[in-house]
Amino acid sequence: MSLKDLGEFGLIEMIKSRVHKSAPDLLVGIDDDAAVFRLSKDRVALLTTDAFIEGVHFDLGYFTFYQLGWRALAANLSDIAAMAGLPKYAVVALGLPAGTSENSVMELYRGMSDMADEFHVLIVGGDTIKSPARIYISVTVLGEVEADKMTRRSTARVGEGIYVTGNLGCACAGRRVLSSLEEALKQQFASTAEKHLCPMPRVEVARHLAENFAIHSMIDISDGLASEINHLCRLSEVGAVINETELPLNEEVKQIAKTFGQKALDYGLYGGEDFELLFTAPREDRNEILNACQQKFGLACSLIGEVVEKTNGIKLKDRKNQLTPILRVGFDHFSSDV
Amino acid sequence: MSLKDLGEFGLIEMIKSRVHKSAPDLLVGIDDDAAVFRLSKDRVALLTTDAFIEGVHFDLGYFTFYQLGWRALAANLSDIAAMAGLPKYAVVALGLPAGTSENSVMELYRGMSDMADEFHVLIVGGDTIKSPARIYISVTVLGEVEADKMTRRSTARVGEGIYVTGNLGCACAGRRVLSSLEEALKQQFASTAEKHLCPMPRVEVARHLAENFAIHSMIDISDGLASEINHLCRLSEVGAVINETELPLNEEVKQIAKTFGQKALDYGLYGGEDFELLFTAPREDRNEILNACQQKFGLACSLIGEVVEKTNGIKLKDRKNQLTPILRVGFDHFSSDV
Repeated sequence: MSLKDLGEFGLIEMIKSRVHKSAPDLLVGIDDDAAVFRLSKDRVALLTTDAFIEGVHFDLGYFTFYQLGWRALAANLSDIAAMAGLPKYAVVALGLPAGTSENSVMELYRGMSDMADEFHVLIVGGDTIKSPARIYISVTVLGEVEADKMTRRSTARVGEGIYVTGNLGCACAGRRVLSSLEEALKQQFASTAEKHLCPMPRVEVARHLAENFAIHSMIDISDGLASEINHLCRLSEVGAVINETELPLNEEVKQIAKTFGQKALDYGLYGGEDFELLFTAPREDRNEILNACQQKFGLACSLIGEVVEKTNGIKLKDRKNQLTPILRVGFDHFSSDV
Repeated sequence: MSLKDLGEFGLIEMIKSRVHKSAPDLLVGIDDDAAVFRLSKDRVALLTTDAFIEGVHFDLGYFTFYQLGWRALAANLSDIAAMAGLPKYAVVALGLPAGTSENSVMELYRGMSDMADEFHVLIVGGDTIKSPARIYISVTVLGEVEADKMTRRSTARVGEGIYVTGNLGCACAGRRVLSSLEEALKQQFASTAEKHLCPMPRVEVARHLAENFAIHSMIDISDGLASEINHLCRLSEVGAVINETELPLNEEVKQIAKTFGQKALDYGLYGGEDFELLFTAPREDRNEILNACQQKFGLACSLIGEVVEKTNGIKLKDRKNQLTPILRVGFDHFSSDV
């Protein structure tokens, strides 16, 4: 069987079966945004890695090297954010074609440094190697979190509200605009395009939420809402009802979808790389949670659904109150054509 | 200027100038085998990453997937060993062509798991992505070491002896045999070929040496003795005299060099990837150090030279007591033709 048949999730299960080991200090292995292990009685460490290959994850036709550096680190910091962690140190493995200019590498590191500075992360090491053709970047981030604040994927509870920060589908719509290579569209939708090029991980928002509210589970949206809500529910052994009318799809996303004859709802459900937070918390805290996000961070937050019993499945409730299953369709790296 | 002109070392200096930041808990940044930061009063963490690309660092013509997994982790563990650290956790970023078989990935992880088990390392996470063509592997390892045992590159002292574990040039000679694709040679020199395919990092030896002797500096030989002695001397601001007659070049390495019309000395000086330890310690401890390596680990150790004043440079003393400079020639990823 090839990886194309197995798919990314099948592959992850296979790898887990191969490397799974338990150890007293290891609290979470492969099943969450980051691995978690104990540093001391009340502090745990978070370790996460993400890799990107030119032509699969980014296109130098519209990415600058600065944006590439920014985005590679941002994706990793988002994994730390999802566990309410503080990112601390990063190491960078970089495969570069020999013809890459010194200036391009400087720009890549400038972008990565600027992203690092946003959250006081230190880039402390790396390995830079020659790649025969494509650019390859993998970043590993070590962070930490107080043991009692850590937010996991596996701890959602029936009856809780399901929340999401920011807007959905922006990165996906932005990529659609950028890959069209139409200058007029790129200018018209510049702010949405920026969401694909230079996303902002929600590190401080996640910390604030975990410190001030009863956040029972959290995940970042890197592979799209549909995929991530499936992850969260599977690991928490619960179901979910998501209200279509509550999904935060902004005007630009709707306009872009219309321009390309596509559905904004599809961008919102299946478009990945928004790096927003999906979390569960008491529904009665809705106003306080929304106010905290808006007033402290100028960031929208929406109550988009409810955690239900597992037997009810994972459903989208449409405008007519009809329920349809939300399938685990996301950016599957092996079966997609991208 | 392109990376080919800049070279790997120029690139590292450039990156350092870009990302260098200081912080109270950060003890060592980009300048050593691993980054070092404080965990508590007496414990420090070590973080290191290494990347490998098919066709540059390994050739599937003679590497099995099992060996590939083993070797990718071994190289990282060797960086932790060089600082007398205990490796603890690893994460793996893997870029795989969609046509890779499930069995190949299983074998890769089996090799990596077996290497991990040798030193009780846990593989706790990763990211597996589609690569359009070549296999990319990057591994990041987190380890720890008691602050007072850590061995650095920058702390060699004038008058100390320079030691090296094991034999030199084996991995290089092994690669030469394997890449010849001659079955008879591969069988004749199987044990040397194995040194290239499945190297053994010196984790326990390094710990034992650091615990029992006054090891003032240490580095692992990943880019060849010539390159690593230059690193060590530059960072320690000292010079070195290496005795050609003391270099541990075994019979197989000599035979292989002869077979290919090359010099065993060149394999020993410039051949990388032996993952042996190069360290400095008092000369008068020679017998005890050599005995400890032999009796406890069945591993040869050689006193190959002496740390001298920086103004004396870094020299090789030949059989006629003539001194010639040892140039920093190693596996430069950007200027080499490999």
